[in-house]
Amino acid sequence: MNVQVKPISSAKSGTGLKWDTPVPVVDLDVMERNIASLQQACDAAGVLNRPHIKTHKSIEIAKLQLAAGAIGITCQKLGEAEVMADGGIDDILISYNIIGAAKHDRLAALNARVSLMVSCDNAVVAQDLSRVVASGKRDLTVLVEADTGRHRCGVTTPEAAVELAVLIQSLPGLQFGGLLMYPPDGQHEQAVAFLDAARAGCEKRGLTIRIVSSGGSPNIACIGQLGATEFRSGTSIFNDRKMVDLGAATYDDCALHIYATVVSHPETGRIMLDAGSKALSSDLSGFKDFGLLPEYPQARIVQFAEEHGFVDVSRCQTIPKIGEIVRVLPNHVCPTINLSEDIAKLRGGKHVGSFSVDARGKVR
Amino acid sequence: MNVQVKPISSAKSGTGLKWDTPVPVVDLDVMERNIASLQQACDAAGVLNRPHIKTHKSIEIAKLQLAAGAIGITCQKLGEAEVMADGGIDDILISYNIIGAAKHDRLAALNARVSLMVSCDNAVVAQDLSRVVASGKRDLTVLVEADTGRHRCGVTTPEAAVELAVLIQSLPGLQFGGLLMYPPDGQHEQAVAFLDAARAGCEKRGLTIRIVSSGGSPNIACIGQLGATEFRSGTSIFNDRKMVDLGAATYDDCALHIYATVVSHPETGRIMLDAGSKALSSDLSGFKDFGLLPEYPQARIVQFAEEHGFVDVSRCQTIPKIGEIVRVLPNHVCPTINLSEDIAKLRGGKHVGSFSVDARGKVR
Repeated sequence: MNVQVKPISSAKSGTGLKWDTPVPVVDLDVMERNIASLQQACDAAGVLNRPHIKTHKSIEIAKLQLAAGAIGITCQKLGEAEVMADGGIDDILISYNIIGAAKHDRLAALNARVSLMVSCDNAVVAQDLSRVVASGKRDLTVLVEADTGRHRCGVTTPEAAVELAVLIQSLPGLQFGGLLMYPPDGQHEQAVAFLDAARAGCEKRGLTIRIVSSGGSPNIACIGQLGATEFRSGTSIFNDRKMVDLGAATYDDCALHIYATVVSHPETGRIMLDAGSKALSSDLSGFKDFGLLPEYPQARIVQFAEEHGFVDVSRCQTIPKIGEIVRVLPNHVCPTINLSEDIAKLRGGKHVGSFSVDARGKVR
Repeated sequence: MNVQVKPISSAKSGTGLKWDTPVPVVDLDVMERNIASLQQACDAAGVLNRPHIKTHKSIEIAKLQLAAGAIGITCQKLGEAEVMADGGIDDILISYNIIGAAKHDRLAALNARVSLMVSCDNAVVAQDLSRVVASGKRDLTVLVEADTGRHRCGVTTPEAAVELAVLIQSLPGLQFGGLLMYPPDGQHEQAVAFLDAARAGCEKRGLTIRIVSSGGSPNIACIGQLGATEFRSGTSIFNDRKMVDLGAATYDDCALHIYATVVSHPETGRIMLDAGSKALSSDLSGFKDFGLLPEYPQARIVQFAEEHGFVDVSRCQTIPKIGEIVRVLPNHVCPTINLSEDIAKLRGGKHVGSFSVDARGKVR
């Protein structure tokens, strides 16, 4: 699971600028290329693009995705969707089981003001959703979440999907819209088989699967084979070390790095960064260390304290000096961005403003 | 490293209240007892109490600590200290190597308005600090950070500490204040030996070690043996699974849990929570799973997605139902709180308001 380290061809050190670190920095040219690539892949496959904003959590970036051709956005939590709706985005899928009385008023209010879909994998959630919208003016479209091998949420058989679809359609205020899937990376066969069986079963019960939402950035490569009508991709807007390791992106596709400063060189072979678990997150994503330093590919972030990165530089030919700013490619960019208030914009090596991480921390 | 799971004696389920989850919830009675215990331990040892706010990041909680007898607070980053100063707290130690032109104006401004100390473990940082305050009206007190076995930051020998102390005292605008240590849990011998040698060396050079700041919540038990004049404790205000595992707290001392809702029961033996890595953090802290469910001690949070906790309930006699709210004791409470905007207050089982996590995400 270790990435093969090699220098980034477009490597530029951030040391020429007075960066206040640690800070996430996005290369706008690369990000815009990634936005366009996703849209082109969707267009070529005849699949609608509904990018997942969990990665960037920024209204401004979501609007760039919509301007490029996306039909709407995907959020994972109600709180994220509220922030995006406040920002003027009016077509939202929340790919999540929303449940609980504390969320009823919020969900009803959101359904009244934007075109909203949610997913659901069980009858308890479906009945709770119905209670929320039964008295509202607008029905809520619900997708049945299917587990096609990732073993997260989702009904596990096409038969269960059909039963849940029938229940949803029978409940006041709910409209059955179709299926939501999140196939394991590169594995579309199980999803298609599930979909075919569920479609046949639904037709027997007089129901139509109108929408098939699929997702996962590593599945962009097989987007045309998923049976999907819509596609959710989050990570591909920035990419990260994990995407490169999976072969779903190259280093040149990585738009976002955390800039960090060397604050100490306490002993031979070890330097300390001002970025720890509170700046980069402890998400290993299968790696044995906490991020990649593209300009120092032999360096390894072997340990974190909350505000310290412990970097083993014993194999490095040159060692970053105290005060030097280095770039770190995060293992998993999504939880990393969620730790930040803003993302600095880089254009042609110049710092040209910031994106606000508007939905940061909106886990409810 | 696995904790021995057992039910919390004071276990109360949160299900009776309409909690909007996931949410950190603090039992005020337990927290207040923890604040008092730390103060009593410091008082009994004749050591000044300077709690570390990195755990709670709340101005209101910091003021409770000051009201209980703390002489000031400790912050890890400049941005945290700015928030606390804005909240009216005027005696702050930043236990960190602060470096870089982007921070100069901020540090100078902070030094002008509060009683400020910082730590430093190298000459580059010392010279940078001097540039910041040389033209200011008030000198900056600098503690030399010593590595006494934790191998994070810190000079590694008493001789190097003395040399750095001499440099600091020679630089315009800086005052050498003493030493800052962070001994490994329960290991005070190396710290005391370092301190004795550094003190003798400093005296030979005409310098006095006025302040010895030590810290680490597990070191409260040996607070009188550290040679410290001041003590920094963060985690003890809430405690967590790691503190219990280390024997530094009991389950009854754990003031904070994340309340999470069961959103799915997709297959036998597995339920899904609405709290994932963005609510609880991926910080394993040496454990093999991501937190403890005190009411369901046989349950194991075996995996995280960003907004999903995968819980193996195959060994549970009763299984929490969809819609049920469960409590999760985090492995490491500090990065967990940093993910939240607020902490709900619980008093006698009633929800009585919230603390704001004012310095959340202030990593710069």
